[in-house]
Amino acid sequence: MEQRLSELSVRTFVEHLATSDPIPGGGSAAAMAGAMAAALVHMVVELTLGRPLAEGNEDALMLTRRAAVAWQSELINLAELDANAYGAVVRARQLPRDTDRQRDARSIQVAACLREATRIPVATARAASGVLELAERLAPIGNRNAVSDVGVAALLAVAGLKGAALNVQINLPHLSEDEPLRAEAGTEIERLLSTVDERDRTLQDAVAERLR
Amino acid sequence: MEQRLSELSVRTFVEHLATSDPIPGGGSAAAMAGAMAAALVHMVVELTLGRPLAEGNEDALMLTRRAAVAWQSELINLAELDANAYGAVVRARQLPRDTDRQRDARSIQVAACLREATRIPVATARAASGVLELAERLAPIGNRNAVSDVGVAALLAVAGLKGAALNVQINLPHLSEDEPLRAEAGTEIERLLSTVDERDRTLQDAVAERLR
Repeated sequence: MEQRLSELSVRTFVEHLATSDPIPGGGSAAAMAGAMAAALVHMVVELTLGRPLAEGNEDALMLTRRAAVAWQSELINLAELDANAYGAVVRARQLPRDTDRQRDARSIQVAACLREATRIPVATARAASGVLELAERLAPIGNRNAVSDVGVAALLAVAGLKGAALNVQINLPHLSEDEPLRAEAGTEIERLLSTVDERDRTLQDAVAERLR
Repeated sequence: MEQRLSELSVRTFVEHLATSDPIPGGGSAAAMAGAMAAALVHMVVELTLGRPLAEGNEDALMLTRRAAVAWQSELINLAELDANAYGAVVRARQLPRDTDRQRDARSIQVAACLREATRIPVATARAASGVLELAERLAPIGNRNAVSDVGVAALLAVAGLKGAALNVQINLPHLSEDEPLRAEAGTEIERLLSTVDERDRTLQDAVAERLR
């Protein structure tokens, strides 16, 4: 892709997702959901600072804002990196395999690209979990008029986390048995998935409580 | 907003979400998640047609593709309409209320704008449910190499549906008791929410099964 994903218009980005070209795909969409979640957290912090509920919580709110800015930037970057990494896998698989030497070179290249294409969605899942944590902190203290935005942020962070996890899981069986990332990534994704439904439920209950 | 949301770059759109300006907010982000979901459904259809699994399913796949195109376009439009509708509420609330006549005019205008700002996320939730239905059809017959993309599509559709529902729910108490939309929207959102967790679980189980 000549143009950076993040420089495409929203409409063109969605149109690129829709084509038969698998790049960009679900990994980039998951990261973009996480980036929107971070942005909504940031917005709610802005709508809360200076209001009565912010009193005594200024430090927490400002730390939350700083973290949201960092995650937003990282997740937009990961959407881009995911597309690049998957593109590299596709190109590596197209390398010639007519001779033994070519086959060896190709499989080394495919393995290296698959490692990167797995590492990126692990980072996306981790970042989305970080954004979910910010929404968790914000749910009880955010501006009540924007509590639905905290809820949407959490929903998007959860979708980003689980979506990135699917992208790790589809790659893992293709990593070689002695590739350390195979066990590491599997363990980290399992750890993140093991708590996400409970975190999701707790947060949405807190949002629903404040919506009443 | 002078420029259409969908014409903004992805990065600028996310930056606009993050500002203290509540527009665009969670309603637009929810619709955008739904649009990405529709686009991923479309991509998986393209990656499936012409493959062995498509045999005998061509009609279903082509109907799914046609519906995905329609929902994608509608959801991008709803992201825009949501921002406009909420902007109109904010402007209506700023109308002067110094005289009885002004107060009457203002409350009529606020009520009309709130009705629209509620109608839009109802349409978003309905569209996201439609996209989820497409992912449900695609899960057993889509290209297995892209089954993670069906999973991400479903996660984003669910986040879009639930996120839009939160935007309806935060507005409902502000609609007047005798406004028919109040009961109608409440009923439709309850109906959509009543099945979404079960649909989500069933689909993710089907995806996990095919990921093995």
